[in-house]
Amino acid sequence: MIAGSAPALPVAGADVAGILTRFLREEIAKFGFRRALVGLSGGLDSATTLALGAAALGPENILAVMMPYRASHPASRQHADAMAREAGVPSRVVDISPMIDAYYAEHPEADRLRRGNKMARERMSVLYDLSVEWGGLVLGTSNKTELLLGYGTLFGDMASAVNPLGDLYKTQVRGVADAMGVIPEILAKVPSADLWEGQSDEEELGFTYAEVDRLLYLMIDLRYDRDALVAAGFEPALVDRVSAQVRASQYKRLPPVIAKVSPRTINRDFRYPRDWGR
Amino acid sequence: MIAGSAPALPVAGADVAGILTRFLREEIAKFGFRRALVGLSGGLDSATTLALGAAALGPENILAVMMPYRASHPASRQHADAMAREAGVPSRVVDISPMIDAYYAEHPEADRLRRGNKMARERMSVLYDLSVEWGGLVLGTSNKTELLLGYGTLFGDMASAVNPLGDLYKTQVRGVADAMGVIPEILAKVPSADLWEGQSDEEELGFTYAEVDRLLYLMIDLRYDRDALVAAGFEPALVDRVSAQVRASQYKRLPPVIAKVSPRTINRDFRYPRDWGR
Repeated sequence: MIAGSAPALPVAGADVAGILTRFLREEIAKFGFRRALVGLSGGLDSATTLALGAAALGPENILAVMMPYRASHPASRQHADAMAREAGVPSRVVDISPMIDAYYAEHPEADRLRRGNKMARERMSVLYDLSVEWGGLVLGTSNKTELLLGYGTLFGDMASAVNPLGDLYKTQVRGVADAMGVIPEILAKVPSADLWEGQSDEEELGFTYAEVDRLLYLMIDLRYDRDALVAAGFEPALVDRVSAQVRASQYKRLPPVIAKVSPRTINRDFRYPRDWGR
Repeated sequence: MIAGSAPALPVAGADVAGILTRFLREEIAKFGFRRALVGLSGGLDSATTLALGAAALGPENILAVMMPYRASHPASRQHADAMAREAGVPSRVVDISPMIDAYYAEHPEADRLRRGNKMARERMSVLYDLSVEWGGLVLGTSNKTELLLGYGTLFGDMASAVNPLGDLYKTQVRGVADAMGVIPEILAKVPSADLWEGQSDEEELGFTYAEVDRLLYLMIDLRYDRDALVAAGFEPALVDRVSAQVRASQYKRLPPVIAKVSPRTINRDFRYPRDWGR
């Protein structure tokens, strides 16, 4: 299906895992922390983030937080538990059902997309609350495919202090996961946010990660234009759809827009790096 | 106490209110929306934002959402109700007590700062959930003083789609509030996040808004250095403390940091405006 001589998506492995481990160690230390925490869903991205965090700071300094909802698949929790054991990290379980159910008792009409977003934001909120007690930074688990497609919840799973995976496409995360010793049960899973029964990322997105990752790599990283992408074997309709989705989700990757009325406006002409003065 | 001939903080009034009203109208329309919603606390910033939104889109297109906690001051709710009536906007009440109490039933050791942050994030989560049903964008209410000092909850009250007040210092918001017809009960209040009994912003911060706003204006907008600020009459200790606080909170004004491993990394070399393609 994919013709032409366009480059393949680079495989990420132990080398990249080493870069990400050093990144986490330095970035966390710079802010004066020695600890971090991660919401462990039972999926590939959070398991990989957990393993990288444990390698960076030592397993005793990473807290795995499992935040099941009563409708979450039991395998998610089993895989998360097994991964935490494998990584040798301490863990905590916070059932988010009471908070979610308390809200939707008053809003029964909400559909599963709204409920899924509310759950993602509750998990963010729990992680940030526990971060105070634990004295650590919240690690992000969003990969580059999700971030570029806007396939995630703003101020939910897209929120974190530091994100090791945000520059790796979903299919590249697998290579890092493998190098970091993520357990086979998790490596073998069909990607899913597990927000409702039988949810599958690829079904929901309407394309496979293998296909969209290669498309995004050529489009974003190598700056192929529409003609070059079509010549590389991609359907014009897919190119247009993905391109529109990347643009339409730009707002999710940036802070809120502020009306300008002063000489120096935050994030316009008042701009400094995130670690300014660290 | 403040000597020298350094410029005073400019007064904002009807002119600035007009700019902010047009900003909201254009910014919201650009994203394909005709409606917005705002969490109405009973305080000055959210009342001003509500009035600006109503002027921009028509009062029938702005939803005021009151989200009291059981320990919120009763006056907060009364003032919010009176302001919604005055602005002629529809309103909804969502009591956040069941969700907050469900969580802290399991974490009774948490102090009031943690509880306050959890409440702010719950309110964000409720607003974003209702935004789907209402079909509108979430308006931000953070002012420039709060944003520069990091005096707000990350992914809580600091989260929004579009923020009309983020370039106005707290004492400037009052002028806009006055011009927009914010009710006298709210104009007269002592600034407080009302996260616990008797909370006062100025007591918690350790300085008055009048003083810190003038300091921030000279420091940030007019780029006065330390010597010039001291010459303008500010205590060196205050200058150092505020300067450190602005730097230390930079992370709250930017998206999570992502490890760079590809040719184009989100928010480093992949950079577009928030309204890219709109």
